[in-house]
This record gives sequence, C-alpha cells and structure tokens, in this order.
Amino acid sequence: MTARLNERSEPDISGLRIDGDRLWASLMQLARIGATEKGGVCRLALTDLDGQGRDLVRRWATELGCTVRVDAIGNLFMRRAGTRDDLPPVMAGSHIDTQPTGGKFDGNYGVLAGIEVLRTLNERGIRTEAPLEVVAWTNEEGSRFVPVMMGSGVFAGAFTLEHALAQRDREGVSVAEALDRIGYAGRQPDGPVPVRAYFEAHIEQGPVLEAHDTVIGAVQGALGQRWYDVIIQGQEAHAGPTPMAMRRDALLAAARLIQSVNDIALRHAPHGRGTVGWIDSFPNSRNVIPGRVRLTVDLRAADDQVLDAMDQALAQACSELGEGGGLSVSLEPVVYFPPQAFDPELVGLVGEYAERLSYSVMPVISGAGHDAVYLARVAPSAMIFVPCKNGISHNEVEDAQPDHLEAGCNVLLHAMLRIAGVGAIDRSAS
Amino acid sequence: MTARLNERSEPDISGLRIDGDRLWASLMQLARIGATEKGGVCRLALTDLDGQGRDLVRRWATELGCTVRVDAIGNLFMRRAGTRDDLPPVMAGSHIDTQPTGGKFDGNYGVLAGIEVLRTLNERGIRTEAPLEVVAWTNEEGSRFVPVMMGSGVFAGAFTLEHALAQRDREGVSVAEALDRIGYAGRQPDGPVPVRAYFEAHIEQGPVLEAHDTVIGAVQGALGQRWYDVIIQGQEAHAGPTPMAMRRDALLAAARLIQSVNDIALRHAPHGRGTVGWIDSFPNSRNVIPGRVRLTVDLRAADDQVLDAMDQALAQACSELGEGGGLSVSLEPVVYFPPQAFDPELVGLVGEYAERLSYSVMPVISGAGHDAVYLARVAPSAMIFVPCKNGISHNEVEDAQPDHLEAGCNVLLHAMLRIAGVGAIDRSAS
Repeated sequence: MTARLNERSEPDISGLRIDGDRLWASLMQLARIGATEKGGVCRLALTDLDGQGRDLVRRWATELGCTVRVDAIGNLFMRRAGTRDDLPPVMAGSHIDTQPTGGKFDGNYGVLAGIEVLRTLNERGIRTEAPLEVVAWTNEEGSRFVPVMMGSGVFAGAFTLEHALAQRDREGVSVAEALDRIGYAGRQPDGPVPVRAYFEAHIEQGPVLEAHDTVIGAVQGALGQRWYDVIIQGQEAHAGPTPMAMRRDALLAAARLIQSVNDIALRHAPHGRGTVGWIDSFPNSRNVIPGRVRLTVDLRAADDQVLDAMDQALAQACSELGEGGGLSVSLEPVVYFPPQAFDPELVGLVGEYAERLSYSVMPVISGAGHDAVYLARVAPSAMIFVPCKNGISHNEVEDAQPDHLEAGCNVLLHAMLRIAGVGAIDRSAS
Repeated sequence: MTARLNERSEPDISGLRIDGDRLWASLMQLARIGATEKGGVCRLALTDLDGQGRDLVRRWATELGCTVRVDAIGNLFMRRAGTRDDLPPVMAGSHIDTQPTGGKFDGNYGVLAGIEVLRTLNERGIRTEAPLEVVAWTNEEGSRFVPVMMGSGVFAGAFTLEHALAQRDREGVSVAEALDRIGYAGRQPDGPVPVRAYFEAHIEQGPVLEAHDTVIGAVQGALGQRWYDVIIQGQEAHAGPTPMAMRRDALLAAARLIQSVNDIALRHAPHGRGTVGWIDSFPNSRNVIPGRVRLTVDLRAADDQVLDAMDQALAQACSELGEGGGLSVSLEPVVYFPPQAFDPELVGLVGEYAERLSYSVMPVISGAGHDAVYLARVAPSAMIFVPCKNGISHNEVEDAQPDHLEAGCNVLLHAMLRIAGVGAIDRSAS
C-alpha cells in the first residue's frame, strides 16, 4: 500500500537512520578485494581488482533495483528512480580506487555511504521525487594514471575524454585499453548530464576533527593548489679541502628554501600551506658538498589572491637564493588547481542535519583534492567529513570509527532526502 | 769515477731539476690502467687493475736498481740504497688506488713524483747518505674496503693488521684474499720500521692554491674530522589536510639542522668546516609531509678543542630541534680523526725550497685525510700540495698542470736530498 503525499500531510522522516553495522560490513567486504597484509588495500585504478570492486558495488546496486550506466571514462552511475524521474538526480559518490598502500575508507566510504542510503530508503519504502544516483568516479587517486580525479574531471569538463583515455601507465597500458580490459568502457551520453546536487562523504584525511573531538565536518570548500619543481645547481666539491667561503652548497640553499616555503605558509594563515615533500641531492655522498638538489614545492590556500601572493613569495625566495651565492635556481610550475568553494545551501544543510541529529559539527576546509571539487564546477556540491584516526590516510593503517562513519551517512541520508524530496512512502515496507 | 765528499767540498746540487715531461709521461702511462671513457681512472684497491698498476710501478723501481719489499697489508716499499744504508730511510709516497670515478693524479702523483726523484738522482749519479724509499700505500681511498688509509694506518699502528685483513668488500671478498689474489700479500717486518722523514706530494683537492694563483702549498697539518649519522623522526601526513600548526615535518627540521651545521662551521673560522653531504627523506612523495629524514654531518677543525666545541654545538642543535616540536632526533658519532700537525722542520723545508726554486708558495692546511696524516704519528712528515683545476678531485675531470706537478716534484727532490744528505756523486753520469 502506497500513501500518496498531498499538500496536507508531510511525512515525518526525522527518525530515519541508516544501518551503521551494514555500512561497516560493506566497507569490510569491499576491502577484501586487494587487501594487503598490513590491513590496507591496494586496488589501483582500472586493474582487475578495481574491476572486481566495481562488479561488487554494481551488484549491490542492481539488487536494490538500480539501473546502471557506465560512461566512456568508466564512471559508474547507479540510479534509483524518483517519482518524478525527469528531474535531475541528486548524487552521492566518491571513488573505489586506492593508493598502492591505501586504506579501507578513502573513497570507498563515499560510495558505500550512498549505497547504504539507498538500502535504507528501500527498506523503509521511501521513494524520492528526484531520482538518486550513487556514483563511483574513475581513477581519483592518480597512482597508476595521471591526471588525478580523472573520471570526475572528464565529467566536469576539466579536461577532455580523449586526453584522459590516451594516458598510459608505466607499463604503457592506456586508460582506454585498461577500461576495455575490465569491461568498464561505457558510452558517453549525448548531451550534458544535469545534476541537482552532488554530495560526497569522506574521511577527513587530516587531524582537525579529531583534535576538536568533532564528528562531522561541514566542508566549506577546497584549498587551491600550486605545485612546483625546483632545481638548485651549485658545485659539488670535497667537503674537507673546500673552505666555507668558497662553497656553492646546493643542499644548504635547499635548506633555506625549505624554511622559506614554511615561512610563506605561516605568513598566509590560517589556510596557507607549504610543503617540500620530495628531495633529491646529488651526488649524495657523506664527504662531498652537494652540487645539485631537486625538490618539489606544494603551496595551498583557500583564496586565489592568497595563492597568487604565495606564488610570488616563492618566486622571490628562489630569486634571492640565486643571487650572490653562485647558485642557479630554476622554479617550474607543474600543477594548478584553483580554490573551490562548495555550494552554500548544501553546506548549510550538512551543518543543519548534523545538529538536528545531535552530532558535533564544525566548518572545515578540504586541504586535499576530491571528486567533489570538480563536480562543484558543474553542479551544487558539498562534502561531509568524518574523522580518521590520527588524521592518517593514504596508508595501510588508515582507520575510522564505525559510529563516525554511521553519523556521516545519516547526515548524507537526510541532506539527500531534503534536496530530492520525498515522493511516496510504501507503509508496508519493514 | 765517484767523487767522495769530504769536509772541504760541498757538491753544488742547487741546479738539479727533475724531468717534468718524464713525470707527466709516467702519470699518463699509469692512468691507462683502469682508464675510463671520460678521461678518469677506476682502479679500486686490490683489484686486478690495482695489481697491474703496482706491477708497473714496481718494474720502474726495479729498473732503477731499487730493492722491493711488500709488507703484510700490501704496502709496496721501493728502496734505493744510501751510502750509509744503516740510516733510517727518507720516504716519499702516496697511493695508486683510485675512487670508482677517480682521476689520474690523486695519489698517483705522490708515488710517481718519488719515482721521478729516483730517476733524476740515477741520471745524475747522486747517491744519498740515507737510503730513499718510494712507497705506495694500500687502499687509501676506502672505496672498496674500509677503513680508508688502510695501509698507512696499519703501518702507523692506527689499527691492527688483523683488523685490516679481515675487512670485506660488498661481494664478501676479504682484504687478505684480495691481496693474495693479486700477489701482494707480503711479510710483516720483525720489528718497527724507523723512518727518518716522510714526504707526500699531492694535488690539493681544493680551490685555495688556484684562487691564490700559487704553485706550492706548504701543508701545516690536517684538519681533525668528526662524522655523524642523524635520524630525525617526525610524522608523515597528507600535505593538504594537515594545518601548519599540527605538523611534525622531519624535512623542515632537517633544513634547520643543515643551517645549524653551516653556522657552527662559520662560528669556528678560519678552519672550521661543516657539511651535510647525504640526505634521505621518507616517504619522499610530493604531497606528503616527510615523516623521517636521515642525514650525515661532517665537521672538521684544525684544533681538537675547536672540534670538541663544534661537536657540542651540534649536540645542542640536535637537542633543541627535538624540543617542543614533537620530533625525536638521534645523533650518532661514526668517525673521529684527530687533527694532525706536520713536522715543523719538514714543513719549513718545503717552504724554503719552494722559495729557492722561485715557486710561489703559501702555507695551507689539508682538509682531507692522507696517508701522511697517519705517517705523522710515527715519523716526521710533511706534504707538498700543488693546485688542481677548479679544486676538483675524486672525479674523472680531475686535472693538474704539468708545470705545477713538475714544481712540486722539484721541491720534493731537494727536500729529500736535504734530509738524506748527498753521499756521493758519480761525475761520469750524464
């Protein structure tokens, strides 16, 4: 028996909750595909293991009555029809590819939280007005193929399908070939795909929520990023016979630059970030003054003006390093992601439902890139962060608490319902 | 016809000169054994190539009428008898083993300058009172077997013969086996070997003489050295989501330490030296805050009190680095060579004869270790430095000017003659 909604009776769904145990069980089941000995997951994009993970998630969606569509870059859309199926869908998603030494939650949580929302609605006989879609984006991690966030990037028009399909891994296998091999080379839709709203639940991958003992992060947006390659050329020389005043020590110069990068970030608080993550010193011998150092710089900021100021400060620091000391410094930009604000209405809903559900909540900013950052270019988008243990991700010890994952999924459920609207409730459902 | 010297007639040998072309030709001939495509030499200690090099030098000495003795660590002593052969010998020497990408001059020059001195004396019919010995010390470079300066170290009692013979290369071959294989496992003398004086001619391996446009360095002594291994343990974390204030960035700490090492050296001018030559950062990924950095520190000073003060300053810098920042820093000393002054009388002779021969000369200090540094523990010792191009050594592009090598060898000739005394001159010699 289906109760048609009318103007007079709004259904009370405020008590609706997902099943945290079921969500956890699904996470653990998916994590077995590519499981590592240390408790992590290695399921690189478009490998056979990725294919098996996709098959499992697709089967779960099909069992829920979803229709499945795969586009030409392999993005997997699992659609639950709405009572007004012509409306643009309300989406939830993320990715199920992992880093080589990845964890069980990064990406996987966002996809399986979406599946859990659908299971909950099925169980309770709730049909939404707008259709719902759970999506698994192709190759978010970028470990096997670059660019990162490939599937969502193609979807949002950040780069072309052709560009993405032509990328090759270290063995020379192209994205197109890899998609074909695992059976996920789909068909591109004829026109643009309108999206009413996109939600992505994700572990924070940072330490802020944990440090504030807070369960839900209402993500305001994502930091912009500028990445660089730096080469400092000095003169290698024997450490003993070369007086201090006659040295052109590339590692000493690198040390100064590393401190400058840190200072630049501190001067652009609270969201400015600066990291030298990779360094290579030549010839790297105990009693030889280093003659050449290569290093990377990663600058981030919430605002493009700030990011530009940091960029200029870095160029200035490199320029000063080269002056007078007989060193040459080359600074090459290699990546730029603009800062991306999320949709204020959707971000507001995340905060509102966290409070209604009595979860502690705080506004946060995403320091990392996510599929939602590309989606935000073409649709109202928001993210829901939950804490991860010690802020660690991209690591086999990545961990998250079941009750936190459950909380984030409940917020996702209610935020999606609010946007999609409740179309009908089958009272006979359990 | 031999003219016996008596009290009345001192022979005038002030016009005596070595043959610079012959010296150069010998250097080039020895450099063919192990020659590299880039113009350098790879003749690692106790390899077959080292054996061939030794055979060539020994043949040259035998042709000059020398007797040859090899001790148990393979040091090769080539002796030209004196008129008073009971006197302790006046020695000249160095080593003929090279770095994997070594040059033609480092070490080889000291040995072949000694051979050239003997050739000159033979040619002119000059017999010295004290015997002369040219010595090639085993494994000065330490590239294949550690410790470095192995042959001279055993000779001077810096470590035992048994310790040296038991060392193994990366393939597991011991020094004893390698010596035996190339036929240079000799016999240890029954007692100590007295040495009247030891001279070592060598390229400077630094830029000081060249910068001062000076041909001869009268080496006052060698810097003491303290080497360390440092491990900085922080916390690896994702570069994006981790706010600056919550980081435990091991590479940032390393950058501070690299600057401290430099500052410590500058505070102990003129001879204080500090170098971080080797660094390894983990996990070394562009967008991950480094969690662990290992690096080496090399401190040098001319005076043990200064070296101790530098050692304490380094310990203090490491300790401060660990305070407050959530980092742990371990500092492990791995090598100590005390500073070594050379014999003032011999050093004075080097300066005196450089001036008499009208070569520009300046006092210098050796920043690197040399066989002479060990010899100075058991015999009056001195070194004669000549410039090398751009101060570069331990490199296939290592280069030196023929006229500089000739000048150093002339100083060596006259300094050796002065100590050994002229016993007889055969006027019939050419």
